[in-house]
Amino acid sequence: MIYFDYGATTPIDDEVLNSYIKTQKQFFANTSSMHKLGQITKQVLEQATKETLDVLGLSNHHLVYTSNATEANNLAIYGIAHRYLLSEGLKWRLITTKMEHPSVYEVFKALEQEGYDVIYLDVSAEGTIDLEQFRQALNKQTVLVSIMWVNNIVGSIQPIKEVLNLLEQYPKATFHMDAVQGLCKVQADFDFNKVDLFTMSTHKIYGPKGVGFLAYRSPIRLTKRLYGSQAQDGIKPGTLDLALAVATCKALKIYYPKTKEHYQQVQALNNYLRSGLANLPMIHINSPKTAVPYILSIALPSVNAETLLHALEALDIYVSAGSACHSKERKPERTVMAMTNSLELATSTIRISLSHLSTKNEIDQLLLALKDICHV
Amino acid sequence: MIYFDYGATTPIDDEVLNSYIKTQKQFFANTSSMHKLGQITKQVLEQATKETLDVLGLSNHHLVYTSNATEANNLAIYGIAHRYLLSEGLKWRLITTKMEHPSVYEVFKALEQEGYDVIYLDVSAEGTIDLEQFRQALNKQTVLVSIMWVNNIVGSIQPIKEVLNLLEQYPKATFHMDAVQGLCKVQADFDFNKVDLFTMSTHKIYGPKGVGFLAYRSPIRLTKRLYGSQAQDGIKPGTLDLALAVATCKALKIYYPKTKEHYQQVQALNNYLRSGLANLPMIHINSPKTAVPYILSIALPSVNAETLLHALEALDIYVSAGSACHSKERKPERTVMAMTNSLELATSTIRISLSHLSTKNEIDQLLLALKDICHV
Repeated sequence: MIYFDYGATTPIDDEVLNSYIKTQKQFFANTSSMHKLGQITKQVLEQATKETLDVLGLSNHHLVYTSNATEANNLAIYGIAHRYLLSEGLKWRLITTKMEHPSVYEVFKALEQEGYDVIYLDVSAEGTIDLEQFRQALNKQTVLVSIMWVNNIVGSIQPIKEVLNLLEQYPKATFHMDAVQGLCKVQADFDFNKVDLFTMSTHKIYGPKGVGFLAYRSPIRLTKRLYGSQAQDGIKPGTLDLALAVATCKALKIYYPKTKEHYQQVQALNNYLRSGLANLPMIHINSPKTAVPYILSIALPSVNAETLLHALEALDIYVSAGSACHSKERKPERTVMAMTNSLELATSTIRISLSHLSTKNEIDQLLLALKDICHV
Repeated sequence: MIYFDYGATTPIDDEVLNSYIKTQKQFFANTSSMHKLGQITKQVLEQATKETLDVLGLSNHHLVYTSNATEANNLAIYGIAHRYLLSEGLKWRLITTKMEHPSVYEVFKALEQEGYDVIYLDVSAEGTIDLEQFRQALNKQTVLVSIMWVNNIVGSIQPIKEVLNLLEQYPKATFHMDAVQGLCKVQADFDFNKVDLFTMSTHKIYGPKGVGFLAYRSPIRLTKRLYGSQAQDGIKPGTLDLALAVATCKALKIYYPKTKEHYQQVQALNNYLRSGLANLPMIHINSPKTAVPYILSIALPSVNAETLLHALEALDIYVSAGSACHSKERKPERTVMAMTNSLELATSTIRISLSHLSTKNEIDQLLLALKDICHV
C-alpha cells in the first residue's frame, strides 16, 4: 500500500496511542466529579492543557476540546458572530476567503443567510489572498475575520503575519485561523499569541480521530451553542474524554518540535516528485512552489479526478480527489476553481499529500503509475 | 478504592478497549475518503452501525455519533424545535420535565427564551411525571416532547410506554428520550422503534468516553446546527472516529444482552444496601422503591452533600453529590427539589451508583462509614 492521503488523516503513532490507552485505563473518573478521583483526572486534564499551551508558546489562551476541527471551526465562527446581533440598519461584516475548508466556508454561507455582510476574499493563482483587497474589505463594522493558515487542497500558505498587522487597526475584529494543515507542517513566522482563535485537529498529526481543539485568547467569550453542564466553561458541556486530550498533548509534544526537520525531509520528497512530474507535461501542477511540501495538487486535464483516483487505487496507491471532506459532493473543487477559474482543472484535480513517513521509492511508484496512465 | 459513582462514568471494559485499539490501528483511513481504504473504513462503520441497530432491535432508525450525550441531546432538541419557526400568533409548544438532565433542561430554558411555549412537567414524590398533567399539556401545537427514561439522580423510571400511547393522538409531536441511564440497566417495556429520537452515552456502559449517539427514526430530518462536510448526513459533519463507533457497538453487544442478569444482581445489592440503611433512620432515601437498583439517592438532612461526599472520600469511598454534571454548580439538586420541595433534602443529597462490579463487601464498608458519620 502506498498512502499519499496524509492530508485526509494520518496513521496513529504508537506512543500517542499508548498514552490514550494508559489514560483511559488509569484515569477513568469523570473530570467533572467532585470527589478526589474526579479532581485527579481534572488535574491530569489541566496538566495536559498546560503542556499543550506551553509547546505552542501560548501564554494567554484557553483550549476547548471538540470532537473534530469542524466542530471547533463552527464554534469559533458562530461563537463570535452571534455576539453581534443583527438589527435594522446595522450590518456586521465578516471576512473570509473563497478557499476555506467547508467547515468554515459553509458556516459563513449560513451566516450570510442570517443577514451578516460576508466578504469572501478572492484567491490568486498562487493560492493566496490579495492583501490589498483584504485591506479594503476591512471596515469598522468588521467583527470577525477567518483565514486558514495552510490550504488543505493546494498547500498554499496565507500571509498570516501581514493579516495580523493589518488587523491591528481594527481592534473590534476578532481573528480566527484554521491551523489544521499548518500545525506541525510549517514553522509560523507569526506569534500564535496574536491569533485570537485557532483550530487544530489531532488526527492530522498522528493522533487519534475524535478530537481537536479551539484555542481562544483571554478575555474572548464565545456565544454558547450547546447547553448542559459547566464542563469546559459551559462552551462544550458534557463529559470530556481525558484520554483524547492527553493524546492530543502527546501528539503535539512529539511532532511540533519536529516541524522543521520533517519539513526539510518532505521538501526533498516534494522536489523529487516535482522533478519527476516535469517529465509528464500533460500534468498541471496547481500547488504553487511556495506551498508547504506536504501537499501537491495536480490535475490531468483530460481525466476526471475520480477516474484518476481509481486508476491509482488499482495500483494500490491512495490519493484524494480534492479533500476527503469534499469527496461526497462530486462538485468542481472550490479552491482550484477560485485559483484557476478553470472548470476543467477543478474537476480533474487530485491531491497527493506526503508525510515524513513517505519514501522516494513510493514516489517512484507513483510517477511510474502516472506515466502509465498518461501513456507516456 | 470503593467506587460508587458508576452513574457518572464507568471503567472501560478490556474487550471494548481492544476493539478501539484494533480499529484505530487497522482502519485508520478517513471514512469520507473516496478511495478503497476510505470505502473499507466506511463499510466497517456501516457494519458497526447495523450491528448496534440490530442489538437494540431497531428497524428504521439512523445513528448520528456525537462526542457525548450532551451533544446528542442538544442536537435532538434543537434539531426538532428549530424546524418550527416562531411567527406572530403562532407559539409552538415543547414539553419536558423538571427532572431532566441539564443537557435537556437547559436547552429548553434557552428555547423558552427564544419564545417557544415550554411546559415543564412536575415530578411526583416517586420521581415520575403525572400522566394526567402530561395529557392536559399536550395540544395541537405540541411539536416536541422530551422525557428521560431513567432519571440520573434518583433512578426513577418514567412511564415511557404510557407516554408513547398518549402521543399516538398527536402525530405532530416528535418524542425524544434521554436513554443514557436506562440502556443496559433496565429492560424496556416499550418498543424502541416507537421512540422517534433517543440518546445514549458509551462511557456509561463500560466503553470509552468521547462518544455517544442520537438514534433518529426515518424519515425525521434534523435542522442543521453545524456546517462542513457531508459526513454523517451533514448533521454532525467532520471526520468521525470509526474506532469510537466500533467501541460503542462492542459495548452494546456485550452489555445490552446482560441487562436482565445484571439488573437482578444489582437489585440484590441494592436490597442489601437498603436493609443496612434501615438501621440508620437519620438517613432519608430519595429514590423510590420502583427506581432502577443502580441508583440510590440518599440524604443526611443535617449534613451538606459536599461534606458527606468528602467524609466518605476520606475513607476511599467515592459517591456523587447530585450528578457529576451538576457538581460545579453547588446549587440545590433540581430533581430532588422537584420531588420533595425540600431545600434541606436538595442540599444534602448524595448519589450512590452501583454496578454489577459492586460487591457486598463494598456495601458493608459504605454502611460502616455512614454509621460512623451518623455517630450511631
